[in-house]
Amino acid sequence: MEIKRGFASDNNSGVHPAILEAMSRVNAGHEIAYGDDKYTEAVSEKLKAIFGKETGVYFVFIGTAANVLGLSALTQSYNAVICPESAHINIDECGAPEKFTGCKFLSVATPDGKLTVDLIKQHMHGFGFEHHSQPKVISITQSTELGTLYSIHEIKTIADYAHEHDMYLHMDGARISNAAVALNEGFYEMTGGAGVDVLSFGGTKNGMMYGEAVIFFNKDLCSDFKYRRKQGMQLASKMRYISAQFDAFLENDLWKHNARHANAMAQNLYTAVKDIPGVKITRPVEANAVFAIIPKEVIPKLQEAFFFYVWDEDTSEVRWMCSFDTTEEDIEEFSALLRKLL
Amino acid sequence: MEIKRGFASDNNSGVHPAILEAMSRVNAGHEIAYGDDKYTEAVSEKLKAIFGKETGVYFVFIGTAANVLGLSALTQSYNAVICPESAHINIDECGAPEKFTGCKFLSVATPDGKLTVDLIKQHMHGFGFEHHSQPKVISITQSTELGTLYSIHEIKTIADYAHEHDMYLHMDGARISNAAVALNEGFYEMTGGAGVDVLSFGGTKNGMMYGEAVIFFNKDLCSDFKYRRKQGMQLASKMRYISAQFDAFLENDLWKHNARHANAMAQNLYTAVKDIPGVKITRPVEANAVFAIIPKEVIPKLQEAFFFYVWDEDTSEVRWMCSFDTTEEDIEEFSALLRKLL
Amino acid sequence: MEIKRGFASDNNSGVHPAILEAMSRVNAGHEIAYGDDKYTEAVSEKLKAIFGKETGVYFVFIGTAANVLGLSALTQSYNAVICPESAHINIDECGAPEKFTGCKFLSVATPDGKLTVDLIKQHMHGFGFEHHSQPKVISITQSTELGTLYSIHEIKTIADYAHEHDMYLHMDGARISNAAVALNEGFYEMTGGAGVDVLSFGGTKNGMMYGEAVIFFNKDLCSDFKYRRKQGMQLASKMRYISAQFDAFLENDLWKHNARHANAMAQNLYTAVKDIPGVKITRPVEANAVFAIIPKEVIPKLQEAFFFYVWDEDTSEVRWMCSFDTTEEDIEEFSALLRKLL
Amino acid sequence: MEIKRGFASDNNSGVHPAILEAMSRVNAGHEIAYGDDKYTEAVSEKLKAIFGKETGVYFVFIGTAANVLGLSALTQSYNAVICPESAHINIDECGAPEKFTGCKFLSVATPDGKLTVDLIKQHMHGFGFEHHSQPKVISITQSTELGTLYSIHEIKTIADYAHEHDMYLHMDGARISNAAVALNEGFYEMTGGAGVDVLSFGGTKNGMMYGEAVIFFNKDLCSDFKYRRKQGMQLASKMRYISAQFDAFLENDLWKHNARHANAMAQNLYTAVKDIPGVKITRPVEANAVFAIIPKEVIPKLQEAFFFYVWDEDTSEVRWMCSFDTTEEDIEEFSALLRKLL
Repeated sequence: MEIKRGFASDNNSGVHPAILEAMSRVNAGHEIAYGDDKYTEAVSEKLKAIFGKETGVYFVFIGTAANVLGLSALTQSYNAVICPESAHINIDECGAPEKFTGCKFLSVATPDGKLTVDLIKQHMHGFGFEHHSQPKVISITQSTELGTLYSIHEIKTIADYAHEHDMYLHMDGARISNAAVALNEGFYEMTGGAGVDVLSFGGTKNGMMYGEAVIFFNKDLCSDFKYRRKQGMQLASKMRYISAQFDAFLENDLWKHNARHANAMAQNLYTAVKDIPGVKITRPVEANAVFAIIPKEVIPKLQEAFFFYVWDEDTSEVRWMCSFDTTEEDIEEFSALLRKLL
Repeated sequence: MEIKRGFASDNNSGVHPAILEAMSRVNAGHEIAYGDDKYTEAVSEKLKAIFGKETGVYFVFIGTAANVLGLSALTQSYNAVICPESAHINIDECGAPEKFTGCKFLSVATPDGKLTVDLIKQHMHGFGFEHHSQPKVISITQSTELGTLYSIHEIKTIADYAHEHDMYLHMDGARISNAAVALNEGFYEMTGGAGVDVLSFGGTKNGMMYGEAVIFFNKDLCSDFKYRRKQGMQLASKMRYISAQFDAFLENDLWKHNARHANAMAQNLYTAVKDIPGVKITRPVEANAVFAIIPKEVIPKLQEAFFFYVWDEDTSEVRWMCSFDTTEEDIEEFSALLRKLL
Repeated sequence: MEIKRGFASDNNSGVHPAILEAMSRVNAGHEIAYGDDKYTEAVSEKLKAIFGKETGVYFVFIGTAANVLGLSALTQSYNAVICPESAHINIDECGAPEKFTGCKFLSVATPDGKLTVDLIKQHMHGFGFEHHSQPKVISITQSTELGTLYSIHEIKTIADYAHEHDMYLHMDGARISNAAVALNEGFYEMTGGAGVDVLSFGGTKNGMMYGEAVIFFNKDLCSDFKYRRKQGMQLASKMRYISAQFDAFLENDLWKHNARHANAMAQNLYTAVKDIPGVKITRPVEANAVFAIIPKEVIPKLQEAFFFYVWDEDTSEVRWMCSFDTTEEDIEEFSALLRKLL
Repeated sequence: MEIKRGFASDNNSGVHPAILEAMSRVNAGHEIAYGDDKYTEAVSEKLKAIFGKETGVYFVFIGTAANVLGLSALTQSYNAVICPESAHINIDECGAPEKFTGCKFLSVATPDGKLTVDLIKQHMHGFGFEHHSQPKVISITQSTELGTLYSIHEIKTIADYAHEHDMYLHMDGARISNAAVALNEGFYEMTGGAGVDVLSFGGTKNGMMYGEAVIFFNKDLCSDFKYRRKQGMQLASKMRYISAQFDAFLENDLWKHNARHANAMAQNLYTAVKDIPGVKITRPVEANAVFAIIPKEVIPKLQEAFFFYVWDEDTSEVRWMCSFDTTEEDIEEFSALLRKLL
């Protein structure tokens, strides 16, 4: 098999052709570097039309940077950020959040990757006590790293709680398109409209090549963000190629088309494998991820044919991510092989 | 004029078509994210064939990051880095070097953007004295921010001096192609072969879209660099698109073709303007930059037609950069306008 | 009552008279600042006689700094440090460890403030995986923040486990004298002899005024520590006054005398209150701390007469620390009042 | 000679007896740790009586920390601080300012250790340009590291210039007592009264043991300083002993008595050596330092009898500091020996 496919991650996929084309289209002539170009201006306006006129929009290269720089705008180094144990900022960014912000990250074990006010409370103490990192931000991920979703009501409840305590709500939206499709809600309704203060708006896991937007719903929070971005090594010189991607991503609801497909494929996969004896689905399949426990000895054989990751070695839980380019054939072949192996 | 052209910066240009095509070519199928893909492996081998088998090769997004992360691999936070006052790391990275490494940056005024052993010596004291940031790295740029060049002999002299003092030599090679062409030397001869320890190998200013390589000539220096890159927020998920760019950049000497053109255009520009009354060329034109003093009142009028930057407000010195896509018409029109205005 | 006494913390006490006297004794004449004086040399030799000839000994101002700088010598910013949830570095240093080292601190809930290999294991994964902060140090406290003790065997077991995984063992010894007395063991036996790599050796909670020693049992780990200390803002100019304190602390086993008294007072307090109805002792009383749950409404009344802290608002658990200057009368009055209030 | 004396530094001296006594006096009984004690409250009131009711007063351990933490309260990491090349923050703090604040430090060569608006201007550009660290603080030292003084008018001029550019003025007052005595001005007149925003108020070089105060003349700047101090590892547990020192320092103008003596001794020394053939005084003797060029070969012989430092190896310039405990005999013996050697 020349090109191996699989369910390892939605960023193992390539780039959607419409996005590649858009990148070519902006390739003629000179543009002022570092974002002062007409493409960046235009797509920023499109994003402001979605998220609000008074929104601050800043492109960076990757989701880790969107999270870390967004959080740095909300904190001083003596602050703490409360997040789920499974959060990308907690386990998948190699300490970039700690190094860049200096903050303490207070994690909470969750059954499903989702914070609740009750879960948050365990870290809500020590305010005003100088020996204690001062909690300032609550960070949630939509959809979560465990493939689950916050309802808008749940987001609002956390946002209200944060604001009552003079704290901010940050959202890691690396898979926000999948969430929007699954909830059948607009981007704004799940974010600024629900009280989110800063959003990492991602596209790479949904068909883009690179580039992420940091969206500030309160402009006071980003008056100096251009310096943070530059010092954070995230200012692209030829920014028009990020802007072109976001433009194509938003055009004709490409984001929705891609995410809807990925989510549907996850449902198909779920349906195809859930009743295979030896397979135990471990999380609700709400977006584009399927988590399952399968017998340990089957895993390497399955991985010979399809990429995917073991989520928890101890319990033999695996993660299967669907993507904008997952095909029905992928699922048929994969589930057939799994059935055969079990 | 729909699309304005100019001499502002070599990163105001677009992307060379061969590079865009290469990015499309790698777009089929799934590849393991974060650099564990066949394209990245292949182009890393190509780079090792140029720079040495025992070289460590790491892709990052931008030159600032290549510089900062490369320096972080050579230093502890109590170290100092000696560089020219005009260095990109000193004046164009918004303090990213200080924030990320914690080091002190000791700058040296230079007539031409070039360090010499004599100039370096002013900062070579306080070794072993704990009150003083300990000098550990000398950083040079090839070609320099002032459009000048180090000869291989000059690089070797500085490298030897660094090593004699248990220090490292870092090279910012954002425009290393222009230097290689101008000196008619290979990449290795100017870098590892001349004693450079770590190189930021850039392509964005010479026709690429994004992506820079950090090249370690001593593998002991990069045994842990993958963690630094991730923590430095510079690990691309879909890395194959950076690799594809470097592949095309190296293929058929595209880098050389592009750089040779840019350098030649700079010579043409120099020839076209040097004798215009009121124009004073201020730096040797050795790579793709032309620096000149022109009357203050002429600048805004010239900028209405062509992008370019004022380098020094006080002296009315301007910088004109040529690029892989600068045309003879650009130069004719520009010099004609300048002549007319003067 | 002019001067209020209590059980709030062993650093609410004053300074032992012998230590104050020693500080006066070194006050004559000039001494080279920053530690190059004869007193510092002499007491460093005394500490080396205890901890080993090849030990590195460095004085800093406070325990937080001893911990943070010691850890910084063992880590790169992409590393992680595993510690109990109750560790001083985790909850009482306002994020100094994160800010200064850049590391991630992985905490473990413990029943008694003590790590075990089994508890540590939950964080022992992701080695070599660049997305994950790499575990490099295990940090334990002796005696713990909950007044409990590690046996030498327990320390050795953790040290061996750390070393097998190419990790280091750090010990916060803010109350190491209390532990040594309780276990009837020497300082070395509990530290370097049991496999500890770096020790924060504290005296302030046992009768000193200020000053803590960072002890390295492997000199390779501290070859550059003098720079870390200076950059960490912990190099005392008039260091002889720290040295004089440690000298008096070690002289005639003053440390032992003080700690033995504090521990004995804790036992007395435990005996005096344990059977009072309404008092529930919550932790083994092994060093100089007594933890108890008492009725919420009693706490403010008791605090009117004696300083002490509530450890857990929710459970109404309080902490009573005994000190070198706690008297039998303190305990009698305190327990009488408590009995009266209940 | 049992105890060697000399002119190496004013912190080679011991502690003034009145200060030692004051430390003993506060030694009885328990006090709440970390500054919440009656002695700290009382001396803070005394400092507010001097510097202004609305002043923020925070004790730290050392001058480096006072400088660094004070600057951290005025800056974000993308800012720059402008200071003289000879500033303590620039050359004597091993990069602590860079590491802790993340800022760039822009130094200016000065003839006499003093900034002027004209000298500052070279760094006043790039405002609003995200590639450039944004200047936010001007830092001056009073008296300077070269033994010179700013007049109040000079300070005001710099303060006005800073404020006009939305910047702050920081003063390193490690030797502010010497300046106050030399100018015959009060502390407030030279600092807050002249427009200084944050002051490092030092005593260790004038007879104290340890401890420095950070004085904020604008309380908005220090609303969160207690967290910065703790995270900066500068919160003393037994703070009463710092407070007692400052109390004695201020009592009966001890600071003035000590500084007047040190300054007078510097004048005596200057008078005693200035006309010795082979001695060339290199700086105005305005506070307690004498700088001179003497023949290289004489230096080691002189150092056999008296401590002092070579300031500049190349020019053979030496620094002789006088202290509160310098005696007329010291000067007579020293100048006699110097005369003999020349």
